[in-house]
Amino acid sequence: MSYTVSDVAPTNPDERLRSLGLDLPAVPPIPLGVQPNRSTMLVHNGLGFVSGVGPIGTTGVLGADMDVEEGAKAAHRAALFMLRRIVDELGELSRIDRWIKVIGFIRCTPEFAEQPSVLNGFSDLIIDVFGDPGRCARSAIGTNALPLNMPIEIEAIVAVS
Amino acid sequence: MSYTVSDVAPTNPDERLRSLGLDLPAVPPIPLGVQPNRSTMLVHNGLGFVSGVGPIGTTGVLGADMDVEEGAKAAHRAALFMLRRIVDELGELSRIDRWIKVIGFIRCTPEFAEQPSVLNGFSDLIIDVFGDPGRCARSAIGTNALPLNMPIEIEAIVAVS
Amino acid sequence: MSYTVSDVAPTNPDERLRSLGLDLPAVPPIPLGVQPNRSTMLVHNGLGFVSGVGPIGTTGVLGADMDVEEGAKAAHRAALFMLRRIVDELGELSRIDRWIKVIGFIRCTPEFAEQPSVLNGFSDLIIDVFGDPGRCARSAIGTNALPLNMPIEIEAIVAVS
Repeated sequence: MSYTVSDVAPTNPDERLRSLGLDLPAVPPIPLGVQPNRSTMLVHNGLGFVSGVGPIGTTGVLGADMDVEEGAKAAHRAALFMLRRIVDELGELSRIDRWIKVIGFIRCTPEFAEQPSVLNGFSDLIIDVFGDPGRCARSAIGTNALPLNMPIEIEAIVAVS
Repeated sequence: MSYTVSDVAPTNPDERLRSLGLDLPAVPPIPLGVQPNRSTMLVHNGLGFVSGVGPIGTTGVLGADMDVEEGAKAAHRAALFMLRRIVDELGELSRIDRWIKVIGFIRCTPEFAEQPSVLNGFSDLIIDVFGDPGRCARSAIGTNALPLNMPIEIEAIVAVS
Repeated sequence: MSYTVSDVAPTNPDERLRSLGLDLPAVPPIPLGVQPNRSTMLVHNGLGFVSGVGPIGTTGVLGADMDVEEGAKAAHRAALFMLRRIVDELGELSRIDRWIKVIGFIRCTPEFAEQPSVLNGFSDLIIDVFGDPGRCARSAIGTNALPLNMPIEIEAIVAVS
């Protein structure tokens, strides 16, 4: 008797996150006082809208003091913060049926042109945890400035059951 | 017999706008000729998509010639222009069941990091007028440039009945 | 017997594209390796979310080495690439009931203020091909940097039947 990978890999995103050895970070106190006037995630008619989130505590500018690999790591951290917010709102990741749309803004120099490679640090983790339902529409956009001087900010729309 | 604030405060957003003493601005003629090829607001299946709008007539760059307080005032003006568009499209604000998602782009220097505090000028007014249904998913993003050199541009998705 | 324009003009967007003499470009191999971890277009519950797309092969900065007319031509090319992706995903353009929302990011200098005029190169083509259902909510935003140094990147939400 033989097993393929899909036979033994956890199919639940919450279990898969644990099997990857990843811990969701605690969300630090919001420093800019935006908490009272926005939701971190709003669910309406089966769609979940996740507010922009970045790798809190990390600062940098792609093409200046941060290279693509470091940017992708920051995007990976942003993904963990976003999953933390989703768990706090929904209770568990498995309530997400699929990812629909992601937009990532990457703080960078005017000549920097590899925003998609930076955002891969986010998308790769989401697909590792959710499998094919983590693959969704996506835009990678450059910007000169972001809150808290973070190198990336990402917002998402997900389907919620 | 006693009253709490919620007993006497108007619960209808149109009345609340009046009780705040706020007048919606007239929309000036569109200077860039974009009117013919886009809608200022499009409603589809109960969702209202509001095109990007700014504080028409105000110019500036956060971190250069405009500070956070001035930026928040500009965001407050942008909110009034957006409400004007919504009233022009829907007839009255009370047709909005709730705000779902807002994204605000703030024109700023590369070092400016307080985009959320600027966008609060928008969100605070929306919540003053709509109450808790005005609290929604939100992203604050920096940018180097905006139409008409405005300091902020905001688009929104709302639930419409 | 007389005919008005609307009597003889093709009402199907696929036919209208042909009648305009426009060919959809072939999509070149993705150079940044983003293919595996995102969808170029995702359809969910009757809404189609199109990933950010630009005029692949064109580079430039509005206000520096590209003027508004050249930018609008680049936006027109971006529209053709987006229609190619939609045809590849849906089979034919006529499966789009209407366009709902477009956001365009224009790479430019900090002083450049005519982002809407650049984005018109996109919107004008979409309305030429789809007629009034091509008119939708829209935002035009400046940015300092985009993938592949393209001058514009556009994402869209459409209603799909």
